Amino acid sequence: MLYCIQTIVAMINGYMNKIAWVDLSEKKIEYREIDEDDALKFIGGRGLGGRILVKNCVGKDPLSPENLLIVMTGPLTGSDVPMANRIVAITRSPLTGAFADSHCGGYAGPALKLAGFDGIILSGASEEPVYLVAKNGELTIEDAKALWGKTTSDAYWSIRRKYGATAVFYGSGPAGENLVRFANIMHFSRFATGGRASGRCGTGAVMGSKKVKCLVFLADMKRKPKPANKEGFGKALADALTKIRESDVTGPGKGGLSVYGTGVLVNTINELAAFPTRNAKETQFEDAYYISGENLRGTLLKKTPTCYQCPVACKRDVEVKDGKFKHKSEGPEYETLWSLGAMIGLGHVEAVAYLNYLANLYGIDTIELGNTLAVAAEASEMGLIEEKIRWGDADKYAELVRKLVYREDEIGDLLAEGGAAMAEKLGAPEISMSVKKLSIPAYDPRGLKGMGLTYATSNRGACHLRAYAVSSEVFGIPYKTDPLSYDGKVDLVIALERLFAFVDSLTLCKFSTFALSKENYVALYSTFTGVEITEEDLDKIGERIWTQERYFNQLHGFSRKDDVLPKRFFEEPSAKGETYDRDVFERMLDEYYEKHRYNPDGTIPEETLRELEIL
Amino acid sequence: MLYCIQTIVAMINGYMNKIAWVDLSEKKIEYREIDEDDALKFIGGRGLGGRILVKNCVGKDPLSPENLLIVMTGPLTGSDVPMANRIVAITRSPLTGAFADSHCGGYAGPALKLAGFDGIILSGASEEPVYLVAKNGELTIEDAKALWGKTTSDAYWSIRRKYGATAVFYGSGPAGENLVRFANIMHFSRFATGGRASGRCGTGAVMGSKKVKCLVFLADMKRKPKPANKEGFGKALADALTKIRESDVTGPGKGGLSVYGTGVLVNTINELAAFPTRNAKETQFEDAYYISGENLRGTLLKKTPTCYQCPVACKRDVEVKDGKFKHKSEGPEYETLWSLGAMIGLGHVEAVAYLNYLANLYGIDTIELGNTLAVAAEASEMGLIEEKIRWGDADKYAELVRKLVYREDEIGDLLAEGGAAMAEKLGAPEISMSVKKLSIPAYDPRGLKGMGLTYATSNRGACHLRAYAVSSEVFGIPYKTDPLSYDGKVDLVIALERLFAFVDSLTLCKFSTFALSKENYVALYSTFTGVEITEEDLDKIGERIWTQERYFNQLHGFSRKDDVLPKRFFEEPSAKGETYDRDVFERMLDEYYEKHRYNPDGTIPEETLRELEIL
Repeated sequence: MLYCIQTIVAMINGYMNKIAWVDLSEKKIEYREIDEDDALKFIGGRGLGGRILVKNCVGKDPLSPENLLIVMTGPLTGSDVPMANRIVAITRSPLTGAFADSHCGGYAGPALKLAGFDGIILSGASEEPVYLVAKNGELTIEDAKALWGKTTSDAYWSIRRKYGATAVFYGSGPAGENLVRFANIMHFSRFATGGRASGRCGTGAVMGSKKVKCLVFLADMKRKPKPANKEGFGKALADALTKIRESDVTGPGKGGLSVYGTGVLVNTINELAAFPTRNAKETQFEDAYYISGENLRGTLLKKTPTCYQCPVACKRDVEVKDGKFKHKSEGPEYETLWSLGAMIGLGHVEAVAYLNYLANLYGIDTIELGNTLAVAAEASEMGLIEEKIRWGDADKYAELVRKLVYREDEIGDLLAEGGAAMAEKLGAPEISMSVKKLSIPAYDPRGLKGMGLTYATSNRGACHLRAYAVSSEVFGIPYKTDPLSYDGKVDLVIALERLFAFVDSLTLCKFSTFALSKENYVALYSTFTGVEITEEDLDKIGERIWTQERYFNQLHGFSRKDDVLPKRFFEEPSAKGETYDRDVFERMLDEYYEKHRYNPDGTIPEETLRELEIL
Repeated sequence: MLYCIQTIVAMINGYMNKIAWVDLSEKKIEYREIDEDDALKFIGGRGLGGRILVKNCVGKDPLSPENLLIVMTGPLTGSDVPMANRIVAITRSPLTGAFADSHCGGYAGPALKLAGFDGIILSGASEEPVYLVAKNGELTIEDAKALWGKTTSDAYWSIRRKYGATAVFYGSGPAGENLVRFANIMHFSRFATGGRASGRCGTGAVMGSKKVKCLVFLADMKRKPKPANKEGFGKALADALTKIRESDVTGPGKGGLSVYGTGVLVNTINELAAFPTRNAKETQFEDAYYISGENLRGTLLKKTPTCYQCPVACKRDVEVKDGKFKHKSEGPEYETLWSLGAMIGLGHVEAVAYLNYLANLYGIDTIELGNTLAVAAEASEMGLIEEKIRWGDADKYAELVRKLVYREDEIGDLLAEGGAAMAEKLGAPEISMSVKKLSIPAYDPRGLKGMGLTYATSNRGACHLRAYAVSSEVFGIPYKTDPLSYDGKVDLVIALERLFAFVDSLTLCKFSTFALSKENYVALYSTFTGVEITEEDLDKIGERIWTQERYFNQLHGFSRKDDVLPKRFFEEPSAKGETYDRDVFERMLDEYYEKHRYNPDGTIPEETLRELEIL
């Protein structure tokens, strides 16, 4: 890695601006340049935001004013690089107590950048509801009393009426206001009126705890960042676009994401008996087809909008035109088709789409929501709660969603804490399919062994986006591995952790990894920023970002004891007779720690931290 | 009744033409005037066609050349009278051996009339496939070799390419060709490209047995019939239209049939625990909402086409745009939402619509199809057949549909005989929910007592269209009765039998009875034809038509022993704890026979037959 960052050039080119530090308690805003050294080492987005968190916010209660909510873009955000459109919210999670970064596509990232900011950091807490407006490098704090209590969509339309159609919204709903521990941050714009989400880890509750309803970005296209090496960038860009267009997964019209959206995965994963069903008591859902991307396209699909600079257009705007599921919204993604579908035994796409719509309106992470409802249904089955909850009962689930958003009754309050806390309070922690209190996504590790290690070691809890082993196990990207074999999965997971940490920091959509290789990312980054890096640098930076997050967790007491999997995966066989082997799992952990140069107990030795320049 | 029919006036006015008698064996066509006396006594359509059957075709094997297939219109067909658009196929049923009349809306009736015919009667059988073309009072027999084997829809489009967009199709599909005993006759036109059906009793198999693929009608609007009493008719018409528009059931935009189609009934009937589920082992379907008119409108509805001269537009053109249920078709009616839904445990409207589409393509009665598949599923559950059939398994059902259409394998042949014959062959007649071998429609008599008597006494087998007691028991039309009470149901059923026999003979859609009263029908008929009748005449004519059909059955050995209900309704309680009381049932039969002036054994004394001028 060449330490030759040209901060002034970067500023001129528009890919590096400044960060607004907002003290909400004092209503003070300070504009700070990005730390050049940190930017080199941690790139942007998730990496650089994580750096700021680690440096400034350790040991704070997630819902206290002392916690930070760091909203970041990256060096490529808003450029012509395809899929460089993500925004990320970084904080200490109120759901898990661990490191949290929650990403969102659409237009929020580019709009924040083109409003003149690399990021906005919220500290303290306002007494009265406020919202922030970013425009032309200036941030203002506005009165949000009239917005408080509104759904995300209603709040967006209020903002839009006031600031015009170009206003971009990134904010919380009633769930965030009521400190539901898995409230999300929703994003709307005129190109994404159905909504997009920074879904996981409860970032919306942190926003709510600070009495911030939303951030509003008013972009100025004149601020669009330009490449440092125009010619080299042109070539890198063309290469990337060709690969994205030619990929069977991302190519427009190729039958993958662009035709069927992320829901294209439903039938495939179900076929593998890796589709957790009814709280993972089963691994195949008899009604999987009905909640698949194919059937969604067949029935409810209205439009396939896309995110900023993305040729894939995997988004699904849906509409149910009448009846009790009537709504118009961004449709459910694969994860939601599963979490509000198979996981709660619901096999009707119109009902799943409706629950997804409710979650979007209220501002709730759909993955955690489905898991929490599944815990409730299993608890009901076991007689642990009085509430009668039948698998697949959409009306009941819709009622419970409303209750948890407003923390209504005992059951609402219980659900609002998330699946793991709920199961624990009911004395049955084993019925929560979670790791580090973050509930699992739509892949059952019994049928996808790589995902077991991913879930256990992910520094934000059971998450598929830290090292998406499925990419290899199902699609053969970057190389094919057997989903039922443990062999080589430690190396696979570590390689993906690094790649994804880098891509998240750029901030590109992870779907780019289905088409692009390290070579592409290195070329795009180097030519655009003028900071030349190599593929080895990319790995090192990825490892640094990864380990920094683990270090953050370690500072809050996390270690090997937290790198676990729900008992069910070890003990109850899948439809194909598969369990996750506990001994193999422990051996994989040993190997994983060793290869990362961590201690056998999962802690990170000072030597490793220094070598990675984290300390 | 005034015997003052003016045949010449009628001919001039265009409401009475002639009937083409086709001897398919000899390829001879004879044009005959309608018998004036019969027309006065039996009106048209069902009544007059029945008269022709009784006079000319007793004791014939339904699938032999000797059976007749009588296709009729009525005196008001093709006029401005709202809903006067039905066509009816009359024959001895190959499914039941009893009297069969099977009605169809759309444009076929008016088109036949405007092609210059009151009816076409098919006798004998052709050696090679043929089709018939009616145009300007001339009928021709054409070679159908190129059409044979085609689906109904493909055959229609072939005809349309040859004869132009105005060609109206009324024909059979592969099911009819293969003598599936519940094959229907499908109708297509440029206003009904999704298809309409003469659904019940296997009329398509009779058409197939005669090697007739279809009838083609080329209408001439100049032949549109005119009223005898223009002024009086104008008033009668205005009254009728006002009532139809003002009715909550039929009124456009009122939330009933016009907004939600016939599927509006699903939730109501399910609520009453009168929605036979999984072969009537249950009476409420947990997924009823998903197959309701409300949800159909919410998800799959594309257009709401209507029939000739009908302001209601209850039809539902649907589309599934992608996936394994991809299709575009006339959507499922209430009966089909039930038969290919709850009855086979299938709660996904897109799959139900797809099975309905298959049935339309192949030309199969959906009610009998659902019942037959339900018998198969219960037989599978009981281990009576090897085939593994899971309730609600759409893929399996689709496979079975294809098998039965082509009588493929033992199971295909078994299914092609219909539910009653299948159950009998399997040694378990009690698992067929049928009367006189015609399977039940979507109303469970345990929750709608009037329908029990209707089913038992209906002269074409378990049918809801002979005396739709639901009209009173649910909608309070013409007056409200308690669905769970037996009181007054004999009188109700008899009154409805008469009214419906008359309306069918006019040939109006039965949905007109939700808005119109006897007064309206009498006024419309009298002013249009110039034949003045009273409400008492209407009742007498209705009774005559009714009894003539029962007489036809009696000539084939039917009597009280056939006026029964499936055992399940007497013995297994509904979700609300209701069974049909066997003693009360027998007492109702006694009363029913007495009031009709039949013998206690259900046969009709000669005296009654003479009094009704049947003999």
